[in-house]
Formats: sequence, C-alpha cells, structure tokens
Amino acid sequence: MTGGRGSGLARLSLNQKTTNRWSVAEAVQGCVRAGLPAIGLWREPVHEIGVLAAVQLVTDAGLRVSSLCRGGFLTDPTATGRQAALDDNRRAIDEAAALGTDCLVMVVGGLPTGSRDLPGARHSVVDGIAALVPYARERRVRLALEPMHPIFCADRGVLSTLSQALDIAECFAADEVGVVVDTFHVWWDPEVMTQIARATGRIASFQVCDWITPLPPDALLSRGIMGDGHIDFRGLRRAVEAANYLGDVEVEIFNADVWDADPDEVVATVTQRYLDVVLDG
Amino acid sequence: MTGGRGSGLARLSLNQKTTNRWSVAEAVQGCVRAGLPAIGLWREPVHEIGVLAAVQLVTDAGLRVSSLCRGGFLTDPTATGRQAALDDNRRAIDEAAALGTDCLVMVVGGLPTGSRDLPGARHSVVDGIAALVPYARERRVRLALEPMHPIFCADRGVLSTLSQALDIAECFAADEVGVVVDTFHVWWDPEVMTQIARATGRIASFQVCDWITPLPPDALLSRGIMGDGHIDFRGLRRAVEAANYLGDVEVEIFNADVWDADPDEVVATVTQRYLDVVLDG
Repeated sequence: MTGGRGSGLARLSLNQKTTNRWSVAEAVQGCVRAGLPAIGLWREPVHEIGVLAAVQLVTDAGLRVSSLCRGGFLTDPTATGRQAALDDNRRAIDEAAALGTDCLVMVVGGLPTGSRDLPGARHSVVDGIAALVPYARERRVRLALEPMHPIFCADRGVLSTLSQALDIAECFAADEVGVVVDTFHVWWDPEVMTQIARATGRIASFQVCDWITPLPPDALLSRGIMGDGHIDFRGLRRAVEAANYLGDVEVEIFNADVWDADPDEVVATVTQRYLDVVLDG
Repeated sequence: MTGGRGSGLARLSLNQKTTNRWSVAEAVQGCVRAGLPAIGLWREPVHEIGVLAAVQLVTDAGLRVSSLCRGGFLTDPTATGRQAALDDNRRAIDEAAALGTDCLVMVVGGLPTGSRDLPGARHSVVDGIAALVPYARERRVRLALEPMHPIFCADRGVLSTLSQALDIAECFAADEVGVVVDTFHVWWDPEVMTQIARATGRIASFQVCDWITPLPPDALLSRGIMGDGHIDFRGLRRAVEAANYLGDVEVEIFNADVWDADPDEVVATVTQRYLDVVLDG
C-alpha cells in the first residue's frame, strides 16, 4: 500500500453489513488486510461471539469502532412493548460503551402494526429518546438519530428528514443526541445542505452508499456501491466536513448482489470507489 | 343507488390509470355505470382515439374531466431536449383546454441520464415552468406541480416535497400554477399538514391511493387501494378541505394486481373504500 493511498483511507470504515456473510472476526481481519482503520459493528453478529470477545478482536486488531448498529424501535404503543424496547436500548448503550464507540445508531421504528397514527408514532420516538438520554449520558454514548428515506417510513423508521431528527436532537445536548447523515437516506431532500449545516456539532456518523435505478425489488436491499447510482458524494462529504464532522466515513451497503460477492473483493471495490467518488479526486 | 350514496360520490373521480386496460370509452362508460361524476384522463389513451373523440365521449356522458395527466419532464439539459419538452407541454395544455379541465398534472422529470446534479435538475424545472406559464394562462389551464415520493427522485420527479413545489408555485399567480396533493407521495412528510395549509388556494388536485407494505417489487406499481395500507386518508382529506379545496377526489392506483382484476370490480371496490376510509364515516 502506498503512503498516499494509506492516508486516503485514514477515515474509511467498513460497516460490517456491507460484508454481511462475514462474522465479526472475519470482518475485522478483512479490514486489517485492506488497511482500513475502523469498522462499524452490528449487535446481532456481536452477540453471536459475545461482546467481550468482540472487544478483544477489535482491540487486538487496532481498529476503531466507528458505530454500533442499532438501537431504536421505540414506537410500540403498549406499556410492555415500550418497556422491552427501553431495556433493550439500555443493553445496546452498554454494548456501545464496551466496544469503545460513542455512536449508537438509532433506527427509530415504523408505524405500530395496524396503526395509521404517524404523528403518534413520532411522539413515541421523542418520549423514548428522552427516557434513554440519562442512561446514555452516564456511559458517554451518544444516541445517533438516523433519518431514514421515506420509503421506510411505514415499516422501519418514522424519522424521515434531517430537519425532523434535528428538531428532536436539539432538545438535548449535542454530545447526548446527534444525527446520522446517510447519503442513501437524505440525498433527495431539497433541504439537505441547509440541514447538514444546521447539524454542525451534532453529526455522529456519516454513512455512504448509492441510490441505484431501477430500484432492486426488495426495498431493504436496494442500496448500491458508491458510483453506481445517482448521488453526488463529494458534495455531501464536503457539507458534513464544513459542519465540523471529521470522523469516520462508513460504507454501509444492503444489497443481495453485494452480499453474494466475495467479501474481500467487495472491500477492495468500495475502497477504490471511496477514493474515486467520495474523496476529492 | 341510494340518495345518500349518490351524494357521497359527488366528488369522486376515477383516474383512468386505476383501470389501466380500459380505453377512454370504456372508462367513461365504467364511470357512468358506477355513478361517478368525474374522470381523470391520460394523454396516451386520449391520443389513441383523438382529442376530439375524447371530448365527445366525456361530454355525451356528462362527466367532468378532473385532470389531464401529464405534462412535465422538464429536466433535459440539452437545448433540443428542452425545446421538445416545451413543445410537448404546450400540446398538453391545448389538450387540457379542449377536454374542459383546468388541471394539467405536471410530473417534472428525474435526473438527466448520467447526471448527479440534483440542484441543477431542479433549476431546470423552475425555468421550464416559467416558460410555460404565459401559454397556459392564455388557455386558462393551471399547471399543477406534483411533488413525488422521494423514491422517484432519481428517475421520475425531482420535486420531492409540497414545500418545494409551493416554493415554485408561489412565484406565479394561484390560478396559474398550483400543486397536486397525492396521498401516496406526501403522507410521510413531517411537514405535510403545515404545507397543505400553506397551499390554500393552490391545490389543483387531490389524489388518493395507499402506501402498502411490503412494497411491491416494481416501485412504479407499488400503490395500494385506500384502506389496504398505512395512510390516514380522513386526516389528509380534511386538511385539503380546510385549505379550501372542494374539488374532485381522484383515485389513481398503479398496481399490477389491480390492473389484472376486472375493472368494474375495481371501480366498485375503490368506490366503497372511498366511502369507508376517505369520507367521514
């Protein structure tokens, strides 16, 4: 690896969902082989080996953990469901702290089954975040609200815009509640540049993947490798940097074809694309 | 048909795309059989029989034409492409005037092929609308800007929110440029109620269909019959009425299963659903 390429990768993080078939151990080794300094972890594969084993793997490899995915799912209207969600989020906060990341990505949840009360679901999110902040604050973990593309509003995340996420985040200190800027989710928003500027000091994570057409049949697996779609990555990266975000850039791609490919080749491709279309040429 | 049911249908319009396999003549006859007072027409099927023949059909049947779909596609960056689009839109304006509707639905177009310049495409839309307004004004046709769900931003319509459509519309008189409120496109928007109120006097069309999950594989055919999905129709209908829109309510459903069904049965179903979940119970 050349020095130039090495320094170009100083902020590149592999979200392990991009190499979905890899275990935590395999993803950590893959990052090391590719010269990546950071990894974004998911709770389910971490649970498969245990949190302490995951901590040992990333520590031994000298990797940063750029984020832990994911907390959230705060829209259950029942007392039991709400309590279960809060309990699980507190466990997620503990896991983030143990893994040495201050960024817990929050996918807030969709409409409750059978409900058409979108404002009500959104209020539940605000209540849930407020209930979690004291616990997260004590453990120095920031709740990172992820606005999701409106395609996911019904069934995954009722936070649909950066503006809406910031309206909630700004009820709390900047180091308590931040926002995730994921290019796939926000690129279409006519206010995206204004809201990224507004998010100065609140950006907890910057994730990149592309919007491709025709949209793949499964909406949950519809994300593309940077450069294969319609998003202007440089413009968005410069905007988050101007908003004082100089942290890791996570590549997070949900895509059946990407998941079927050889994971080392996927890492090589996304690394090259990061250099080619995300960083300045 | 009972008087109560009859008066309940006084504002219901069948957008002919809902019964996609029907010709204009068949759709007109279907509306008459079902007791619907209005129809939304599309240019392609109108062209198949000729505009004058279509005028004759709706006049003889005593139907209102609630809208003509569609003008737009204004984002081609080449001089030739831009001129062709303006010429075609002027023909669409003439057709709307001939059909006796003042509402030409504008689907503004997606990103030009290979382009990632979303702000540039949006500027092209503003330029195109400005170029068309004088022609439309003379013919008393209102250009009805349709903000489209962000799922279509790349390939169909770079107007993504009511707020953005109103920013453009408000550059012109209210009877020159209006907006379409289509529940499928706007239901997720955290600002939807505020922006509908802002649109008072500018709402040129109110269209209804549902957001269903799981989303069907073809995004263009992903719309559901009212009541089958997640949208609160009554809330949105009351909001557009409070914004002084008392015109027709068009049912427009792009869905392969709906298109495969018997069109008369589809009309019966959407009529019943309109009474059950769109109007007040």
